[in-house]
Amino acid sequence: MITFDEAHDFVLSAVDALRPLRRPLVDALGAVAAENLVAREAVPGFANSSMDGYAMRSIDTQSPPTRLRVVGTTLAGDAPAPAVGPGEAVRIMTGAALPEGADCVCMIEEIEVDATRGEVLLTREMAAGDAVRHPGDDIAVGDLLLARGDVLNPPLLGVIASQGLDSLLVYPRPRVGVLSTGDELAGPNVELGPGEIRDANRPLLTGMLQASGFEVIDLGVALDDYPSTLALLESAAATCDAVISTGGVSVGDVDHVKSAILALGQPQARWMQVAIRPGKPFAFGVVGPRGVPLFGLPGNPVSTRVSFELFVRPALRRLAGHRDVDRPRLNAVMNETLTRSKDGKLYVVHAEVRVGRDARLRVERVARHGSHLLRGIAGANALALIPDGTEIAAGESVSVLLLDDLDVSETGS
Amino acid sequence: MITFDEAHDFVLSAVDALRPLRRPLVDALGAVAAENLVAREAVPGFANSSMDGYAMRSIDTQSPPTRLRVVGTTLAGDAPAPAVGPGEAVRIMTGAALPEGADCVCMIEEIEVDATRGEVLLTREMAAGDAVRHPGDDIAVGDLLLARGDVLNPPLLGVIASQGLDSLLVYPRPRVGVLSTGDELAGPNVELGPGEIRDANRPLLTGMLQASGFEVIDLGVALDDYPSTLALLESAAATCDAVISTGGVSVGDVDHVKSAILALGQPQARWMQVAIRPGKPFAFGVVGPRGVPLFGLPGNPVSTRVSFELFVRPALRRLAGHRDVDRPRLNAVMNETLTRSKDGKLYVVHAEVRVGRDARLRVERVARHGSHLLRGIAGANALALIPDGTEIAAGESVSVLLLDDLDVSETGS
Repeated sequence: MITFDEAHDFVLSAVDALRPLRRPLVDALGAVAAENLVAREAVPGFANSSMDGYAMRSIDTQSPPTRLRVVGTTLAGDAPAPAVGPGEAVRIMTGAALPEGADCVCMIEEIEVDATRGEVLLTREMAAGDAVRHPGDDIAVGDLLLARGDVLNPPLLGVIASQGLDSLLVYPRPRVGVLSTGDELAGPNVELGPGEIRDANRPLLTGMLQASGFEVIDLGVALDDYPSTLALLESAAATCDAVISTGGVSVGDVDHVKSAILALGQPQARWMQVAIRPGKPFAFGVVGPRGVPLFGLPGNPVSTRVSFELFVRPALRRLAGHRDVDRPRLNAVMNETLTRSKDGKLYVVHAEVRVGRDARLRVERVARHGSHLLRGIAGANALALIPDGTEIAAGESVSVLLLDDLDVSETGS
Repeated sequence: MITFDEAHDFVLSAVDALRPLRRPLVDALGAVAAENLVAREAVPGFANSSMDGYAMRSIDTQSPPTRLRVVGTTLAGDAPAPAVGPGEAVRIMTGAALPEGADCVCMIEEIEVDATRGEVLLTREMAAGDAVRHPGDDIAVGDLLLARGDVLNPPLLGVIASQGLDSLLVYPRPRVGVLSTGDELAGPNVELGPGEIRDANRPLLTGMLQASGFEVIDLGVALDDYPSTLALLESAAATCDAVISTGGVSVGDVDHVKSAILALGQPQARWMQVAIRPGKPFAFGVVGPRGVPLFGLPGNPVSTRVSFELFVRPALRRLAGHRDVDRPRLNAVMNETLTRSKDGKLYVVHAEVRVGRDARLRVERVARHGSHLLRGIAGANALALIPDGTEIAAGESVSVLLLDDLDVSETGS
């Protein structure tokens, strides 16, 4: 057996970011920038009003009440209005350029309009800059707006658009082939034969890949036969950026995926017995000139999920250009005592993490002890990492990886 | 001015879930189930081995060491092997049906194979059930697997597939039209004219909609002209499930969106001044026989984001069939004192929330005070809700809405 860290490092050291490509912003959410972006346009580009109101000189308002003569109107998108002189005001809409001479805007709700005389009356003193957005307030020319490796979230998409761009150089989303193996797997919408089971792993992996922003290529099911397994993995490696296979990586007689990955992935291939539970057996190799990673995961779906989260997802995020490839290890407080065997392994337990009134993360296991199956873990939003030993007592702290949204603790504190 | 709760309830009470449709599992991640799913197949369907090893009768192993005669081999997917009698064992692979007579499996690593004599030798006692998965362990026929309103996460996709299904009745993802308004908006890849600005709101809204699992229809830019704004919104309401417009909802002379929504949405339309900051002006109406909601949001992008999070996203999640439409309000501890004006408003502040070593959520504002612009908020992963008053002191608790992933606090505790 090897440690989790050794297996993780072996995988991560074998993969690198895919070749960048230019992608339209409408399809760039969650992608990683592959270039720095330096501002070429200031935002705002000119002094403008942040409110609907009247532009004026603040010096004219220092002995209220003040009467000002309205000398024009300016809307957003207009060319600059005529200059504002002493005793004058210009009606101005949000976003319109501040007229020359004016240094502030009084919002419409704070002003009295005397339409018959073409005047406005205000009782408050104004200060220079009131309700004015200054050029470069948000972005100055030359600012570094994005660095290579930044993840494009919705505000950053807006920031890129604010520079007049509609695309950016990003790392592509990995296209990931998903293969199940086993003579026992039956497809949907047919009766099960004797000894047959449904394939839950492809839908599970497809969902996990989609949730992490990767593209899925369904490679179907390989039978328990070495030559066809080898051929399927080899052709998948030619068309995908990465390939995930489930089943066939244990020590049994029909574990052809293990053999095929070791054959295809030389010299960078390895079959590992990792000191984690579940997810002990794991095959990994890198194939061909593009260095396509092949992941051979255990066949039971809970192990599949754990191996995906600990090894596959970080590697795929490296392909996608992410700086931080692992989910952060957050501290959370155990809600109940959890016992385990002292066996040298890291236990990876499906758990529910909630936030208490005291702002603390609280964690509780969700699956029935030892469940190898999916239904028991569907309510989990986290994996808790339980280090070797005999127990973690209620109130002690453990590391958790969040997989899904947090909710509020129902039990108070 | 009306309260946040009043505005929120007005919007939410006007919308309802879209008509369900059947969707293939490969395209169902994040969708909401529109039917209950009751198990029609047990999982596992038959007793089977959870390991590669030898199936045997536990009663034969009570006086170790034990020698057993190997009478056959069974693989996953095989028809049941011959029965195991006293003193006998069957070689069995993970997932293969347990032979009649056997009640446990000894894993291959714990057994010694005497190939010449066709026997196996084990030194441990076995218990009935060791390494056996029993029929219905995960799912029994008749179990409620999914209730209407459950959100389909990756394990649930696997659970549905385990029933031999490849689709489910779900609520559709809302198709949401996104419109910007204003004569001042210039497109990408062209020089800005005098008084013109870039449109950051459509990329921002597109990203926020995609991040929440909705489909986006780009409606472009409406000029500041009432008849064309009205026509655009009316035709959008005929083809979209919801429409979001930004700009033109204030008290200025060119706020045609407000007028158009009030005209189209009668009698369920309302222009609101909500006691929140930013995001005070907000127009909402429901149009036509399908009850398509129209949202008129303020034009500056930070307000757009806040209004989207507080009003639009919950309403769209109701269309999408979600039970919990609002982001949960999590408690977090202020890292620093935050001062504000006592003005009767709820302040909605872009913030960064991290998890300390003490498992507590810590919150800090990210934007420069009063920034109306996007660059300053790109690093936020949360909105902090600051109630009316003059300050929240460091160490006090506030409610936060998480928008993005949590990370570990760098500052310890």
